[in-house]
Amino acid sequence: MPGDTPLAPSSGLDPEIAARLSRDAQGLVVAVVQRHDSGEVLMVGWMDDEALHRTLTTGRTTFWSRSRRAYWVKGETSGHRQWVKEVRLDCDGDSILVKVDQEGPACHTGDRTCFDADLLDAVVGVPTPQGVPR
Amino acid sequence: MPGDTPLAPSSGLDPEIAARLSRDAQGLVVAVVQRHDSGEVLMVGWMDDEALHRTLTTGRTTFWSRSRRAYWVKGETSGHRQWVKEVRLDCDGDSILVKVDQEGPACHTGDRTCFDADLLDAVVGVPTPQGVPR
Repeated sequence: MPGDTPLAPSSGLDPEIAARLSRDAQGLVVAVVQRHDSGEVLMVGWMDDEALHRTLTTGRTTFWSRSRRAYWVKGETSGHRQWVKEVRLDCDGDSILVKVDQEGPACHTGDRTCFDADLLDAVVGVPTPQGVPR
Repeated sequence: MPGDTPLAPSSGLDPEIAARLSRDAQGLVVAVVQRHDSGEVLMVGWMDDEALHRTLTTGRTTFWSRSRRAYWVKGETSGHRQWVKEVRLDCDGDSILVKVDQEGPACHTGDRTCFDADLLDAVVGVPTPQGVPR
């Protein structure tokens, strides 16, 4: 809900942006990272106020690791850096879209994206006229 | 973490897929919805095992509403239906990418996507040679 206490009360995030965030119980919002040129969805990460502040002000993506409970800058160790092109907040304030210039593969497995490896069997939807049962 | 109890223990989800999910404390994974043709990221929703099962088997997207604590089928009331083209699980099992054929605007505000309205001020990253401080 908006107004929940963020993980980092000392965050440098612009208060006008902070007021529009709808954080989960851990003080986090979802961050979807997309290649600005190809449109590929590269990965999903998590940001608290401070991670978003750093993403908005450094030109690189910073996330909050829920498992390690620490900030991480994408590419800091791998060199597969993400250069920020555009950052957007969604209509209910609980997710962020970050368009980036990606260096190298985005996934730690070496794949171009974190969604390359596991295509699930799915029934493909066939559009039907509105109101007509399928 | 993998193996957490899902919200819907009676889910019809394929046990082999269920075993690969890494759910949050509420038994949910993030679902990113992308237009299959334009590549636009349309919205972010949440799925438990049963919502994913329905998404995989009905040709339409089903989500779990955290606020209403109920399943919802996108477009059920608005008519702005999402027809499933492809569903992918990410490398650590905590997010899903659903590529869809979107009818009408994806956002309840009438915007094409839920990310159209709120562009944040961001420093644009300028790639630098690896190892050279910016």
